Amino acid sequence: MPFDESVLAKFIASMSPHMALLRLDVLSISGGVCLAQLPYSEELVGDPATGVLHGGVVTSLLDTVGGAAVLSALGEPMPLATLDLRIDYLRPSTPGQSVRAKVECYKKTYNIAFARGVAYEADEADPIASMAATYMLRTQIRRSESA
Amino acid sequence: MPFDESVLAKFIASMSPHMALLRLDVLSISGGVCLAQLPYSEELVGDPATGVLHGGVVTSLLDTVGGAAVLSALGEPMPLATLDLRIDYLRPSTPGQSVRAKVECYKKTYNIAFARGVAYEADEADPIASMAATYMLRTQIRRSESA
Amino acid sequence: MPFDESVLAKFIASMSPHMALLRLDVLSISGGVCLAQLPYSEELVGDPATGVLHGGVVTSLLDTVGGAAVLSALGEPMPLATLDLRIDYLRPSTPGQSVRAKVECYKKTYNIAFARGVAYEADEADPIASMAATYMLRTQIRRSESA
Amino acid sequence: MPFDESVLAKFIASMSPHMALLRLDVLSISGGVCLAQLPYSEELVGDPATGVLHGGVVTSLLDTVGGAAVLSALGEPMPLATLDLRIDYLRPSTPGQSVRAKVECYKKTYNIAFARGVAYEADEADPIASMAATYMLRTQIRRSESA
Repeated sequence: MPFDESVLAKFIASMSPHMALLRLDVLSISGGVCLAQLPYSEELVGDPATGVLHGGVVTSLLDTVGGAAVLSALGEPMPLATLDLRIDYLRPSTPGQSVRAKVECYKKTYNIAFARGVAYEADEADPIASMAATYMLRTQIRRSESA
Repeated sequence: MPFDESVLAKFIASMSPHMALLRLDVLSISGGVCLAQLPYSEELVGDPATGVLHGGVVTSLLDTVGGAAVLSALGEPMPLATLDLRIDYLRPSTPGQSVRAKVECYKKTYNIAFARGVAYEADEADPIASMAATYMLRTQIRRSESA
Repeated sequence: MPFDESVLAKFIASMSPHMALLRLDVLSISGGVCLAQLPYSEELVGDPATGVLHGGVVTSLLDTVGGAAVLSALGEPMPLATLDLRIDYLRPSTPGQSVRAKVECYKKTYNIAFARGVAYEADEADPIASMAATYMLRTQIRRSESA
Repeated sequence: MPFDESVLAKFIASMSPHMALLRLDVLSISGGVCLAQLPYSEELVGDPATGVLHGGVVTSLLDTVGGAAVLSALGEPMPLATLDLRIDYLRPSTPGQSVRAKVECYKKTYNIAFARGVAYEADEADPIASMAATYMLRTQIRRSESA
């Protein structure tokens, strides 16, 4: 893992404190690809009657892991912000299972990075949700220059 | 308000328990438009250094209020699930302020409803984020028929 | 109309020669909002059996009119490129009718502009399609700096 | 190729007559994946000064090839319509080159199919644009049931 773990943990907590509280575990991160897992927890369950994860958890997970993938592609700490995010929800999650997200930063320019990935339980080929997102890089500069 | 408050509260809690825990307050809901507010809370803050809201809160807020808007457009309780969600993040939030979301369900067919809206603080014309989403209706039927 | 018509026509032709060929007519453009109409033509029809417009026409129309709206919001000619585009198709078009697009550039920063709008025939409240897009500004600069 | 070529050609022409006119060539289609190529043509060029493809061509190409991929995944002719489409534009195209699109239908339910893919010239790993789309299946039924 090319990142100092404390840098990565701080990054994730700043992108999504909810993810940090839920103990998001980064399983691997290198070359612009991040794989992370959210351990099972009662707090992840949207509807107690069905045990299905609530959608906001999956969305936040994909957004956060996408930001980590971009950080990995950049190879250096840098302020970044999600510019836009698209999530397609493919099926209900399986009750009681932890959920993984695998996101790849597949393109970067000077001030934009593009990422795509999936959330799933045991099998990456049977995803719960699919995501495509863009992240704005060097956001401190952007804000001061905004009109 | 044409909905029984307990039905609405249960709906919101099932779409997003995190929103329910954060005491999402529905200010108005009728004719397919829902306006709701998330009161200020330390839990909403992503980065203590800047006080800016974390993006996941805004995303979950818009998704949940969108679902409520669809429920209002339908005029009857019905199982529904977000099919896809797009969020454009327009600017950082202003530290320390509560955040509102206003979402309109502007089209519905037999099994799909379309919604769009914004999140903002004091001024709807200066949004933090913009959203467009589709919701699948009658999801119980869909699941049993899925291949 | 605050733009020289020849500048606008050249801009539209460069964004979409197909739109230019189809004689896209800008009905109004000011303050970041552009309304344009595509006159009826056999070339717009996707399926001769139904007379319904093909989706690519609607998508190109919204993309092009969105670029014009951004140009209007900027108030000066500037190189720009669509960064991402989302289209929701709401219903089939009505056979034999011309189609309008109304798009608003509702936010701009130093290097990104955000637009949203609809395509419709007679009635803006009964849209064929809805769009949300971001445009990258000052694209010459971006390209030379890309990694 | 599991499809009769005339069925496929008719399908493509109905989704996008512009693509048909530009002689979209299906290189392979099976198992829910379609690879197709648009031969070089003056009509593809957006800006004669740079020779860069206009964005509408890339968007229509990805939409059409996505529909073909869904048709392949379904294994039988069926009416379908794009429900929503998201395109991320990653870089300008290289002047004078033909362009390919490779799209996979990676999930289908009873009435929705999900597809994702890229457009590129020689190298799939260096895409011009990335797409994610959903297609509504059995659209004849949907329309008659719409409210």
